[in-house]
Amino acid sequence: MLGRGIWSSVRQGLSRGLSKKVGGWASGEGRKVDIAGIYPPVTTPFTATAEVDYEKLEENLHKLGTFPFRGFVVQGSNGEFPFLTSSERLEVVSRVRQAMPKDKLLLAGSGCESTQATVEMTVSMAQVGADAAIVVTPCYYRGRMSSAALIHHYTKVADLSPIPVVLYSVPANTGLDLPVDAVVTLSQHPNIVGIKDSGGDVTRLGLLVHKTRRQDFQVLAGSAGFLLASYAVGAVGGVCALANVLGPQVCQLERLCLTGQWEDAQKLQHRLIEPNTAVTRRFGIPGLKKTMDWFGYYGGPCRSPLQELSSTDEEALRMDFSSNGWL
Amino acid sequence: MLGRGIWSSVRQGLSRGLSKKVGGWASGEGRKVDIAGIYPPVTTPFTATAEVDYEKLEENLHKLGTFPFRGFVVQGSNGEFPFLTSSERLEVVSRVRQAMPKDKLLLAGSGCESTQATVEMTVSMAQVGADAAIVVTPCYYRGRMSSAALIHHYTKVADLSPIPVVLYSVPANTGLDLPVDAVVTLSQHPNIVGIKDSGGDVTRLGLLVHKTRRQDFQVLAGSAGFLLASYAVGAVGGVCALANVLGPQVCQLERLCLTGQWEDAQKLQHRLIEPNTAVTRRFGIPGLKKTMDWFGYYGGPCRSPLQELSSTDEEALRMDFSSNGWL
Amino acid sequence: MLGRGIWSSVRQGLSRGLSKKVGGWASGEGRKVDIAGIYPPVTTPFTATAEVDYEKLEENLHKLGTFPFRGFVVQGSNGEFPFLTSSERLEVVSRVRQAMPKDKLLLAGSGCESTQATVEMTVSMAQVGADAAIVVTPCYYRGRMSSAALIHHYTKVADLSPIPVVLYSVPANTGLDLPVDAVVTLSQHPNIVGIKDSGGDVTRLGLLVHKTRRQDFQVLAGSAGFLLASYAVGAVGGVCALANVLGPQVCQLERLCLTGQWEDAQKLQHRLIEPNTAVTRRFGIPGLKKTMDWFGYYGGPCRSPLQELSSTDEEALRMDFSSNGWL
Amino acid sequence: MLGRGIWSSVRQGLSRGLSKKVGGWASGEGRKVDIAGIYPPVTTPFTATAEVDYEKLEENLHKLGTFPFRGFVVQGSNGEFPFLTSSERLEVVSRVRQAMPKDKLLLAGSGCESTQATVEMTVSMAQVGADAAIVVTPCYYRGRMSSAALIHHYTKVADLSPIPVVLYSVPANTGLDLPVDAVVTLSQHPNIVGIKDSGGDVTRLGLLVHKTRRQDFQVLAGSAGFLLASYAVGAVGGVCALANVLGPQVCQLERLCLTGQWEDAQKLQHRLIEPNTAVTRRFGIPGLKKTMDWFGYYGGPCRSPLQELSSTDEEALRMDFSSNGWL
Repeated sequence: MLGRGIWSSVRQGLSRGLSKKVGGWASGEGRKVDIAGIYPPVTTPFTATAEVDYEKLEENLHKLGTFPFRGFVVQGSNGEFPFLTSSERLEVVSRVRQAMPKDKLLLAGSGCESTQATVEMTVSMAQVGADAAIVVTPCYYRGRMSSAALIHHYTKVADLSPIPVVLYSVPANTGLDLPVDAVVTLSQHPNIVGIKDSGGDVTRLGLLVHKTRRQDFQVLAGSAGFLLASYAVGAVGGVCALANVLGPQVCQLERLCLTGQWEDAQKLQHRLIEPNTAVTRRFGIPGLKKTMDWFGYYGGPCRSPLQELSSTDEEALRMDFSSNGWL
Repeated sequence: MLGRGIWSSVRQGLSRGLSKKVGGWASGEGRKVDIAGIYPPVTTPFTATAEVDYEKLEENLHKLGTFPFRGFVVQGSNGEFPFLTSSERLEVVSRVRQAMPKDKLLLAGSGCESTQATVEMTVSMAQVGADAAIVVTPCYYRGRMSSAALIHHYTKVADLSPIPVVLYSVPANTGLDLPVDAVVTLSQHPNIVGIKDSGGDVTRLGLLVHKTRRQDFQVLAGSAGFLLASYAVGAVGGVCALANVLGPQVCQLERLCLTGQWEDAQKLQHRLIEPNTAVTRRFGIPGLKKTMDWFGYYGGPCRSPLQELSSTDEEALRMDFSSNGWL
Repeated sequence: MLGRGIWSSVRQGLSRGLSKKVGGWASGEGRKVDIAGIYPPVTTPFTATAEVDYEKLEENLHKLGTFPFRGFVVQGSNGEFPFLTSSERLEVVSRVRQAMPKDKLLLAGSGCESTQATVEMTVSMAQVGADAAIVVTPCYYRGRMSSAALIHHYTKVADLSPIPVVLYSVPANTGLDLPVDAVVTLSQHPNIVGIKDSGGDVTRLGLLVHKTRRQDFQVLAGSAGFLLASYAVGAVGGVCALANVLGPQVCQLERLCLTGQWEDAQKLQHRLIEPNTAVTRRFGIPGLKKTMDWFGYYGGPCRSPLQELSSTDEEALRMDFSSNGWL
Repeated sequence: MLGRGIWSSVRQGLSRGLSKKVGGWASGEGRKVDIAGIYPPVTTPFTATAEVDYEKLEENLHKLGTFPFRGFVVQGSNGEFPFLTSSERLEVVSRVRQAMPKDKLLLAGSGCESTQATVEMTVSMAQVGADAAIVVTPCYYRGRMSSAALIHHYTKVADLSPIPVVLYSVPANTGLDLPVDAVVTLSQHPNIVGIKDSGGDVTRLGLLVHKTRRQDFQVLAGSAGFLLASYAVGAVGGVCALANVLGPQVCQLERLCLTGQWEDAQKLQHRLIEPNTAVTRRFGIPGLKKTMDWFGYYGGPCRSPLQELSSTDEEALRMDFSSNGWL
């Protein structure tokens, strides 16, 4: 059985029935919340006129709620959060809170460019029901985002957040890798519980696990393409866009990894790589939403400037699923 | 005499006394507004508690207003716009409008990630007195920001903007170069008057000038480091962070270029390269603000997560100015 | 038990006693040579006057020959091959052939920039005793190295090589990733038996394994930092600079992976990441050679322009080993 | 009149009739050789069977010799030097020496990966008639090519070279920019006379001119796309692939710059950007050679792995010339 021992046992004990009252970091027993498991980063459905379609959001959640996810990430990169107003961001989280099963975790993206805005958004996210905040690196001034600056930023946010904080490094969007030394320093903060790392560099992931092993700190893979490899080096779960359409399969991959069935895990992982790349790097959110339409969810349009796929792209997207036996 | 002939003559005729009523693109005579000249991208002063310090902003503007700038860029990258709320962004522009000389242009940064938000911000910027909107490329989903997506974005913004639109490409911040073919297509829009290009690739700048020569379209260099070279290939001005501290010198460089005094221009340009790099790529806005303090303006702190310079960095910054005879 | 089934069974059957007469690809039974296992990419020792020190080379080989490696890579990037003359390259391979145990494989780097030179070097390498040729991507004209060009290059080399060919992608040195589609096409060539991939992107490695599963094609990880993860996604071995100094440990990691002891494998992998980075990306060949001196091998100087480590760097290098319990 | 004063006057005095006996750096008067002017980096013609076609080489040189070039660069990147044997490299230079006019300079590329090989090649190049050596940065171990390593490399080469040395930075091929501080240090070496910089960053070029102004050190632009801008910031010439096909036009651009006819220079520069990009970054040497065929020279095939252009690419190449009035 893989996974970092400390967490595995906590997790087994909890049998995934972890009380929702994960609360803040000042909990009596001094243990941080366990975030191990699989999360779909839910998309934000829009109407034809680009309004947030809260009903479709709820419908999607109802369907997704039937799978053995650990919870949901709301307002991750796939949630088009940069296109939402502050009140839309909060309303989306609030609706997801209502629509999702009570025993699952809600991780809400609360990152903004300024530290102050991030603190305020994090507090608000807690108020509308988030169990933890997932905070993307600020990036517009990436040339000045030294380890020192990022440590200062996240420390401030974690100090003032009523809910646990998950670091979030996604270089494809931000052009910035949260440096390993910064992560190691931040892992010692009592209110920082882990990191979602979407960079895909498993040497780095392994090093993060290794160098934070004396902290209660958990690493989540940020994509399904390297989920098996991430488990192999000590990650405890993943936030996987692909889980929006192949949820049971991603959960099955988790189970195979956690129970040491590596040969089957490898076979399944292989079949998920191309579909995963298709709904992330290759065709982005438009690709993910199009696929959701195919798989019985509501995908719908993106907000502009994200454009619909061309028919050629759509065909290539379909091929990435069908050639691997998923369509 | 360099500069694109068509603009040079317009400009001479106007003797820089261009009526502020530059208005929209639907002006009777069918000519776009002339944006040729030098602009400081003004910084946003903050108090020790990180509030916008509007008084210091006005004081800075009064000092800057005495130089022969064509106008001011407000809410460019140096304005820390990603750290401001929407109302702060508008209030800053409004205050600058009041504090600056009436005969100068106010170019207001109105870029947001979504097309809709950008349109709304652009309209609001016009209402608080901006003469033109300078619109940075959306960038969080840079992997999907194809020419088609960017053309769609800017066309929508320009269609709905009551004021002329200036494209803004700043790859150091956005990780994205607005593609040449997109610029050429957009140059044909009656309400798109030019581009601020901060990438520093003068081959590209020359090509932009060449391929838009049949349009009323103007290219502004986005930095003082390649200002002379930009004039040489047909740019008509520059938005230069350095002009916040060495305003007269940057204007002198413009004059030397426009009057064909290339040897003197070259000597002056040489002495501006290191100071320019220091207040941009090397030490960023913290470097620029520190230098403003030295030169009699109010620089003050940045909003977090931007950090103050270390004393070592401050010394290196000072050296970049003193070794070139500016301090 | 992990590893691609087909190879695992072949390998078990052979009990690592594979006859050296692995021969060319035209072998009767139509099976390609099995290259699964761990290989140190041996360094080229130089005297104080920068002559190749063949005696030290042989001494190193005698020591390395006692570990359960599958074989040796000679003239990989760590062999400083770009600094050797053609005759030195061949002489080094010839000497290694003599000094190494008879039952191990000798993979000789034969890549040159031109196709013709690569063919000639490959033939010569076969003549001096190489079991297989490991061929780096040509890279000086990387802007023109399309899939088509690379497929053409490797096909020609493989057609004319008397020994099996292993593809070699090492973007840190070449600035070029051998594209997945090119690898898949080339995997069908009867004389191309696998790839050494040093890029560290395990999503890509997994995809390579997946898309070549119908061919006799084997993937080797190009570094010890992601060795465990590579096994997890279907790689069958590794060419690991670190094996020059921590040979038994890298072989132990292999054994733990192949026998499914993933928890112990993970612990060991974790302790190898920093030392591995130290002797590759962080301090390069000068770091590797310095470490060899510490571990009882002859490291010695590099050829210029590679420089010796500063004492500060040497201290950091030592720390990367000592903090993980290896010094 | 632009150009760095010191060189301009030397040049005028010499009226381009500079004695070929430019000799080594230990010349009595202590002045370095003047390399100002335009150079085509000559291509290496191959027969259908990929042998060097020395006759075609000579024919090309006879044609090129009629234009007012300052000289020729042989074995630059466009000469496919990585595909030539050492003896071919020397023979090509020897033949060019014979075929070219006596009063022009022959700059021979002598860069190799190791310092020792570069020294030997440089000495040999002098023996076969090169007036100066143009030495590309070693790059395979770019991660270790610090300023210190590169300064050491070039100092050694310049110390031992019987002919002046020109630095050569071409990041598109090498993935490496020769750092400004290294260039400044090296500019003080009595046998290092200048740099060919192909990176296209004119801010950097201007800084190089500025920081070496107290040395006899000359900057050559490495491409025709930014030639005008380079003159504007103080470069004294260019090594331009485009000069192989539009030689008179590139020389005319030089003349317009040197005589201060900037408006005409700008117009001409504009029309050269797309053709220049076409024969360099866009279609590489295959594009350049195809264009040579069109313009009455012998282009012919490249050595493999460089491939011929597709017919689609060939059409796009032709359009880049015809749309600018050159075909």
